[in-house]
Formats: sequence, C-alpha cells, structure tokens
Amino acid sequence: MQIVIIGSGNVAYHLAKAFVLKNIPLAQIFGRNTENLKKISEELHVPYSTEHLEDADLYIICVSDQSVESVSQMITKKNCLVAHTSGSLSKEILIGGYRKASFYPLQTFSKSKNLEYEKIPFFIETETEEDKKLLFDIASQVSKNVMESSHEKRKYIHLTAVFACNFVNHLFSKAKEISDSQEIPFDYFLPLIDEMVQKIHEIDPKSAQTGPAVRNDVRVLEMHEQLLKDESLAIYKTMNHSIKKMYEL
Amino acid sequence: MQIVIIGSGNVAYHLAKAFVLKNIPLAQIFGRNTENLKKISEELHVPYSTEHLEDADLYIICVSDQSVESVSQMITKKNCLVAHTSGSLSKEILIGGYRKASFYPLQTFSKSKNLEYEKIPFFIETETEEDKKLLFDIASQVSKNVMESSHEKRKYIHLTAVFACNFVNHLFSKAKEISDSQEIPFDYFLPLIDEMVQKIHEIDPKSAQTGPAVRNDVRVLEMHEQLLKDESLAIYKTMNHSIKKMYEL
Repeated sequence: MQIVIIGSGNVAYHLAKAFVLKNIPLAQIFGRNTENLKKISEELHVPYSTEHLEDADLYIICVSDQSVESVSQMITKKNCLVAHTSGSLSKEILIGGYRKASFYPLQTFSKSKNLEYEKIPFFIETETEEDKKLLFDIASQVSKNVMESSHEKRKYIHLTAVFACNFVNHLFSKAKEISDSQEIPFDYFLPLIDEMVQKIHEIDPKSAQTGPAVRNDVRVLEMHEQLLKDESLAIYKTMNHSIKKMYEL
Repeated sequence: MQIVIIGSGNVAYHLAKAFVLKNIPLAQIFGRNTENLKKISEELHVPYSTEHLEDADLYIICVSDQSVESVSQMITKKNCLVAHTSGSLSKEILIGGYRKASFYPLQTFSKSKNLEYEKIPFFIETETEEDKKLLFDIASQVSKNVMESSHEKRKYIHLTAVFACNFVNHLFSKAKEISDSQEIPFDYFLPLIDEMVQKIHEIDPKSAQTGPAVRNDVRVLEMHEQLLKDESLAIYKTMNHSIKKMYEL
C-alpha cells in the first residue's frame, strides 16, 4: 500500500506526522515549496519531490481549496484512490480517471505545534465500500473519531466549525480591542475564557449561558450599547437578539 | 479585622472559600437561603446567620445586581467598609453611612466547581487610600492579578467579558444547533475549540484568525449563507462583515 501526500503546508505536515507516528508508511511528500518539503522530509524521514510524483495506491491532497482542482489533474494514474482534505469541496472537484474520495480532518493546524492527533475527527466520503473501508482503516489508526460524511453533511460540519472556532476567535479579537482601549491586559480574561470553555466539556452550552441578555437585564444592555459603535455595536445587538430568541425572552 | 460576606450564591461561596483557603478569617456568612448557608458554613467552618448581621470592619456584598442596593441598607453601622462585587454597578449604589468600595472578581462562578483562585483578577475601587490598601492586601492574598479600577473602567471590563465569554458561549450553542441538525456529536468539535483557545494564550487573536471571511472566500461564504436562516444567518453576516472590516478586506 503506497501512500503519497501532496502539499507542503500545515495540513500536509501534520497529516504526514500523524501517519508516521502510527507507522503508516508514506512513499512520498510531493509539493511546490522545496524549503517546507525538505524540513518535513528531514523530520519525518519521508522522501519528497517537487517534480516527480511517485506511483501510489492512495494520494491525499492537502492544498488550499482553490488549488485542489488543478493539483488533482496532475495525477494521471487510473487505478488508484485520490482524496482531498477540504471541508467545503465535493469529491467531484477532483478531475481524473481515478476513484475519488474526501478525507477531512477537523482541526485548525498551525506550524510547529504539537497536536493530539487521536482526538482529531476524520470525516470520510468515498465512491465504493472498499475505499470506505480502506480510508476508515487508515483514519482509525490515527484517530478515535472517524465518521462517514456526505458532501452535504461536510458543509454543515465546516459551518459548525466557523461558528465554534473562526467566529469565536473574532469575538476574542473584538474583546481585546475593548480591553486594550482601557489598558487592561487581555491576559486577565484568559482564566474566565478557560473556565467557560471547560464548562462546555461538561454541560450543554445552552444550559451554561450567562450574561445580561439571558437575564434580560435591560439596564446593563442599554449601558453597554452606549459604550459601543460600528461593528462592535452590530455584533452586540445581533448576539443579544439571538440569545433572547433562543431563551424566548 | 472582622470580615462578613453577605450572600449565599456562587460568588459568596467561592469568595468565602478563597478567603478560608488563605487563612483570611471570616466572622460570618449572612444571607437569606438557609440551606445554602448551612452547606457553606459546614464546608468552610464559618458561622452563618439569616437574621443577625454580625458586627464587622468589612462587609462584602455578593448578591445579584438588583439586590445590592436594598441589601446595602441593612448595614446600619457607620465605621466600616462595605464593598459590592458587581461588574456593572458604581460604588454609590451602596446606601449607608459607611465607607464604600467595589471589589470585583472577574470569573464565572459555578456551584461545586474547583477554581484556581490565584488566577482570578480582582478589580478594586475605594473612596480612600487606606481602604484601597486594605482591599489590595486582602485580594493579593487570594490572587496574583489585582488592579485598581474606576466604575467607568469596570463597565468596559464587564463588556469585554460579555464578548469573550457570554457571546462565545452563545456561539457554541448556535454551533451545536447546526451539528445537532446533522446528527454530528458536538463533542467532535471540542478538540478544535480547545486548540483555538490554546492559541490565544500564545498569540494575539487577531493574528490567529482563520476561516472563509478572512480569506475572503466568496464561494464558501455564499454557500454557507444558503444553509442558514433567521438569527444564525444574522450572526453569520454580522461576524463576517466585522472580520472583513478588521482585516480591511
């Protein structure tokens, strides 16, 4: 079973590392960025190339959404399986005579950060039962959470992640704008944030909601609105409206 | 130095516990809820009463915002210091002939949960330098982060916490609505959430932003909008608009 990872970014690096740590052999890492590939290759002891794509049974494409289609056309072999790792693309974006699949690891990948790979959920979609079994086998060696997922379902997974991760991070940015304006170290809010996040490991976030909106504390809500403007005010109003709707206030 | 805590809820419990753990003696816990007071009293070995308010040098009022004013009027003693623990009220809400203060611990307090008290920031406002020193001395025994804060500043602290904590929790609720609708366990998103929160312990959230809006990925943004409606759609649009503004996209 020959596996090739295509890409030289964070997803390629972490997926390759997760495979190597579980003794899943990689035939090659293929990409454009020689510097990155060289680093990955040296760390993980996997051959790399920027020119000659190795013959393989499985190619996993770990490039940006915009590049998946063009990269997929570089694979001219027919008797093989090709999977992309995008949360938002269908497997039909892949163009070639091979069998197609999606192999989506749900995580935010940073360079040089250690991740607990066994906690990363993998969502898999294939054309055949055989390919499904193959990708489940591989993903299950890396992670405890492997699930089948249609393209339609994957769209919602990605959307959930946008709410739970991208938007949350933006709220932290907006919060930091406010605390910076008062010269209060944003670090002071980290214990509060940690505690709130710890809570949703234990109880439904809906039961954990606190704050002026869920108390319908009109005095505080009006006072806060006077402190805000522009996008911050729009976020404040939109979030409070949504909280009131959810709790039927 | 006699200290009395007034209140029988989560803030009263945790503040009392934090004091007792640091051998700051409490003369009494006073409140209305006999059952709660009895539990706190037994656990922390502090006397309680629902009727007779003990004579003290410092009273710390740990009740809901709405009750602070009326509770403060129960203290008829003049030569003493009275502090409330609200993030949004001024110290002038306290009605009596005593010296007034605000003693605001920034944390979300749940029952029966262990907290690392030394990480909880305390924000202090007093009328005199002497009282400031007194409350700083006490808070510094409990926590490493003690800061002076005017009422005006405290408003912004509270507002920052609403963005970083209450709104974030609501985003988790909305995210769970989406994943529930697809029968995807919300637990699958916890490693992603943990990783994202871990990141902002190390780097500015503004530098950590990912997702379709900051990439200005119009294809994904439009696809997501078609999957959403009502409050979720409003949040989606408002957050993306704010992200684009922040990164000048």
